[in-house]
Amino acid sequence: MAKLYVIGIGSGQREDMTLRAVECIKKCQVIVGYDFYIELIKDFIKDKVIIKTSMKSEVERCRLAISKVKEGYDTGVISSGDSGLYGMAGLLLELNTDIEYEIIPGVTSAFLAAASLGAPIMHDFCSISLSDLLTPWQIIEKRIKAAAEGDFVIALYNPKSSARVYNLNRALEIILRYRNPKTFVGIVKNARRYNEEKIITTLDSINLENIDMRTILIIGNSMTYVKDGYMITPRGYII
Amino acid sequence: MAKLYVIGIGSGQREDMTLRAVECIKKCQVIVGYDFYIELIKDFIKDKVIIKTSMKSEVERCRLAISKVKEGYDTGVISSGDSGLYGMAGLLLELNTDIEYEIIPGVTSAFLAAASLGAPIMHDFCSISLSDLLTPWQIIEKRIKAAAEGDFVIALYNPKSSARVYNLNRALEIILRYRNPKTFVGIVKNARRYNEEKIITTLDSINLENIDMRTILIIGNSMTYVKDGYMITPRGYII
Repeated sequence: MAKLYVIGIGSGQREDMTLRAVECIKKCQVIVGYDFYIELIKDFIKDKVIIKTSMKSEVERCRLAISKVKEGYDTGVISSGDSGLYGMAGLLLELNTDIEYEIIPGVTSAFLAAASLGAPIMHDFCSISLSDLLTPWQIIEKRIKAAAEGDFVIALYNPKSSARVYNLNRALEIILRYRNPKTFVGIVKNARRYNEEKIITTLDSINLENIDMRTILIIGNSMTYVKDGYMITPRGYII
Repeated sequence: MAKLYVIGIGSGQREDMTLRAVECIKKCQVIVGYDFYIELIKDFIKDKVIIKTSMKSEVERCRLAISKVKEGYDTGVISSGDSGLYGMAGLLLELNTDIEYEIIPGVTSAFLAAASLGAPIMHDFCSISLSDLLTPWQIIEKRIKAAAEGDFVIALYNPKSSARVYNLNRALEIILRYRNPKTFVGIVKNARRYNEEKIITTLDSINLENIDMRTILIIGNSMTYVKDGYMITPRGYII
């Protein structure tokens, strides 16, 4: 019986995929994904039927994938990062639980970015998406406040798009009510891709200009420090 | 020049490692790790010098690894899950930034467990370790409260050890102050290993008996539901 593989591809670089992700992509006859992600792995899906859809057509994309499985094709739906965090696993299962699934976890962007910055996460952390396309802003705001109060390391996903410019400012304003303005922040764009850019700065000095949907911000907790260019959140070991 | 590779090995099953993790393990002459993790990958490190240390000797383990690099050996320090979340990346950088590093991110336990449960994370989430060995309980408690109030999906790491039995009860008590007792909870032990065990239950019905250090609890948010055995947190798509 054909199967639906829900595959997290990490950064999209082959080296950041798990062996199982690579193996399942190879096995699939059909690959479905947002066009930017398809582009990332195009070199090793040349022999496949590719179904690309644009941003914001996730429901259509998932329905197409499910129908391909019903037609008898092993089908892979790819998400960048992990398939189960802001990826496609949830929507697929919401739409259909009658076909056979294999969900293949991957390395989420926050961990890819963290590896480039040193060890900024290390301890308890929160991930928050600033996209209010599917989530009311009041809920996002409540979570930002809670994460800031709880002194979590905070990873901000989808910080800014061309149509959504102000959410990041609003988020930073809330965080600054609870946190020292000199708290370290690591900003990574295109983490672990050939065109990666990164900078370590502080909460009060973030340059919003260069931030887009492919950028992740990692806001340290009250113990986070910088040493020789590495951003480090201590776990608490006595050394 | 020799290099220190800080490697997240996911579940420890080869299929859950990234290609880069496998490649770097192969490259290393010396592999350093907690003995349980070494055991997980023993089949493909037979030709290496292995330095195993027990739990709670992390500082010693990291110092040994750094000294091996200084002696000229390519050395890999392995952590289960991701090297940058409750792993060894932070402690190594705290101890030494003079040698050359490569930090290789991996799939953290929460995502491994999530893939086995369906799609319980999907949306904004927090990870909290219940170990108060290195972190004062007041800080952990503050974070649990914040995560519960913020309606985050919550992944609880290190929920219980033989020496630390009560923290999970205390954590659940706090969470129940803010959350519906019928909130779904996925519990996975040895996620994606041959001996994986999993169950989906509710906040008020957790059986604490079978939970240990290799168990992850994923507490849903207020929207999380169960369908045909899958635990699903919706992202908010209109379907």
